[in-house]
Amino acid sequence: MTPIRSADELSPGMSFDLGTFVLAREEVLDFARKFDPQPFHLDDEAAKASIFGRLVASGMHTLSAAVAHLLRSGLLAEVNLGAGGMQLNWPAPLDPDTPVRLTVTVEAVRASRSKPEMAVVTLRYAGVTEPAGATVLDLVAPHFMRR
Amino acid sequence: MTPIRSADELSPGMSFDLGTFVLAREEVLDFARKFDPQPFHLDDEAAKASIFGRLVASGMHTLSAAVAHLLRSGLLAEVNLGAGGMQLNWPAPLDPDTPVRLTVTVEAVRASRSKPEMAVVTLRYAGVTEPAGATVLDLVAPHFMRR
Repeated sequence: MTPIRSADELSPGMSFDLGTFVLAREEVLDFARKFDPQPFHLDDEAAKASIFGRLVASGMHTLSAAVAHLLRSGLLAEVNLGAGGMQLNWPAPLDPDTPVRLTVTVEAVRASRSKPEMAVVTLRYAGVTEPAGATVLDLVAPHFMRR
Repeated sequence: MTPIRSADELSPGMSFDLGTFVLAREEVLDFARKFDPQPFHLDDEAAKASIFGRLVASGMHTLSAAVAHLLRSGLLAEVNLGAGGMQLNWPAPLDPDTPVRLTVTVEAVRASRSKPEMAVVTLRYAGVTEPAGATVLDLVAPHFMRR
């Protein structure tokens, strides 16, 4: 993806289709063993009795994989300085081996109060499964970016 | 830690000291390679020129490790059904090999509207480094729990 060269190229409403990523079953289990060892992320039988009814990916895995996918796209490689926080929702759980299309939309752009060479760009990340169309990630995050 | 047996045991203001966890430098690099491949999480020299001034852990790693630490404490093992979203802040970045004390405080408890056997318990996670006292994680998350 062609990298953005300055936060000044971004304006509210701009949207970027970043293609799809997949969390393979083995990756889902590996992440859950390390960071989210709960029955509904680790064991098919136990997961059947959970509120999800089946084994699903850790929401933190969905989050981390989406951010990784954005970073690897190169879109923000020349401008991103870090993210300042997040409002995070998982409207639907993510099944292993299911493609997730990631779209990032610019919600707001403002100059930094203290540092004129920086802007705070609020991005909304939407992860939607294919072909079912379930939203598995809805994330709003302010990013510090170079201008 | 003695597991909670019902969300009804929890009330606003209750607080649980879960002890400390550490992200070793190799784990920090490994997480960053997989999920947050940015110079300030991967390379000491490049990190010096970043807004952090040094190599720091991915905020998603701090988050995931804190949740893992809470889960491994066993406190919620008998009640937790899943978390519904998060408001997430990283007031300070986390250095590798630095102990983080995790405290979880109950902010609110309410019965589920649709499922009387469930409650929604809002927990606030605070991760504070030792001995410096820097807050590296401030997380508010509604958890669905058994009553």
